Amino acid sequence: TQQLLSGRVPRPKPFRVTNADRSVKKGIMAETLEDLMNKVSDSLSVPCIMALVLDEDGTGVDTEEFFETLSENTVLMVLEKGQSWTPYLKYRDQL
Amino acid sequence: TQQLLSGRVPRPKPFRVTNADRSVKKGIMAETLEDLMNKVSDSLSVPCIMALVLDEDGTGVDTEEFFETLSENTVLMVLEKGQSWTPYLKYRDQL
Repeated sequence: TQQLLSGRVPRPKPFRVTNADRSVKKGIMAETLEDLMNKVSDSLSVPCIMALVLDEDGTGVDTEEFFETLSENTVLMVLEKGQSWTPYLKYRDQL
Repeated sequence: TQQLLSGRVPRPKPFRVTNADRSVKKGIMAETLEDLMNKVSDSLSVPCIMALVLDEDGTGVDTEEFFETLSENTVLMVLEKGQSWTPYLKYRDQL
């Protein structure tokens, strides 16, 4: 009822979440940032999440408001304490 | 009612705001330039903002009118006293 009254029905969206060295990536459904944090914690075995950032440019996703603007299948990176985002090296740069 | 009468409904837009050395970037929702300034101050721990400039070319965003023309997810840089904008070095330039 609350959701109907507020005119906004949260619907789970798919996200892709990777770890700091991009060795693991998981598809995770989440309705809210908090929901995603909890699921990432389990799925990627990260007990204590320091930050969730956009994989593309390292933008920190700190608020539910900004989280809601993300499109389906956005790739996020989870950071633990001491880890930081690094740019994705395209294949040709690794040759 | 105010918003209906004025014929303009401000809607929060997502922005990405980085600090002067681009070590931190945050996704922030804001309706107005003033709103964004306040949120940047908290989110990036910048007590006294000297300027907000476009990350791409250092253009100063000083007025609400210009701010309104920015598209979603524009990257802005916050400058404190004594800091200035510097061009972004692409990865290949750092090799």
